[in-house]
Amino acid sequence: MFTLDARLQQDTLLLGDFPLCRLLLMNDAHYPWFILVPRREAVSELFQLDAEEQQALWRETTWLAEKLKDTFAADKMNVATLGNVVSQLHMHVVVRRRDDAAWPAPVWGKHAAQPYSERQVAAIKEKLQLVLTENFCFAEG
Amino acid sequence: MFTLDARLQQDTLLLGDFPLCRLLLMNDAHYPWFILVPRREAVSELFQLDAEEQQALWRETTWLAEKLKDTFAADKMNVATLGNVVSQLHMHVVVRRRDDAAWPAPVWGKHAAQPYSERQVAAIKEKLQLVLTENFCFAEG
Repeated sequence: MFTLDARLQQDTLLLGDFPLCRLLLMNDAHYPWFILVPRREAVSELFQLDAEEQQALWRETTWLAEKLKDTFAADKMNVATLGNVVSQLHMHVVVRRRDDAAWPAPVWGKHAAQPYSERQVAAIKEKLQLVLTENFCFAEG
Repeated sequence: MFTLDARLQQDTLLLGDFPLCRLLLMNDAHYPWFILVPRREAVSELFQLDAEEQQALWRETTWLAEKLKDTFAADKMNVATLGNVVSQLHMHVVVRRRDDAAWPAPVWGKHAAQPYSERQVAAIKEKLQLVLTENFCFAEG
């Protein structure tokens, strides 16, 4: 059974589900920073997914990155799976702008997270509802 | 026409070619750090590749990560496309070990690169020749 890693649960807000992956929002207002987690048990590396799941993960990742780039006016999308701290397989999809807090460095470990206000989260969800119109189920609340 | 970005050229050693991607070795003995570059012109984001090329990139990435994990006894593989500095689309595939110089932080910007000796490079190439036996063409020299 799939259970979200406790650290991911603590650091993120739930947005909803693609066919394979749970979509989370990192609770850090520095960057629009999203995380995809395949709803599979005990998977840590990409190649531990079966071939079909690998394709689904890449499809969801690439599609999400494309939508986010437009929606949040990114200068560059950063896509990465590291997992040195949280071993549960998860894919970072981060909107980067030339004027963001860490540019051009990667986002990890640069700044302490700055939690969103409820209003900021509502604004992000509203934007996403305009573009995640296919194969995505928004979580309630 | 595909031309490798000048910064990538300067920082890496050429290993060879997969069907889509050029495989480079980052000239930094801190970590076995590889880079895949799709041999396509003027592509910066994943979703600028066509659907078939996207699949090929992911296939080559995932396959390479799996081979490297065994070959270099990784504790975790890090896979990322950032491109904040070098805009030419390139995928980092980095072998991470719990005792490496940056663990558990990501590798970017942690330490100045420590160039390989010729002997070290030869040893890496020898290892790769045992596992990159399909769909890969080693560069001469």
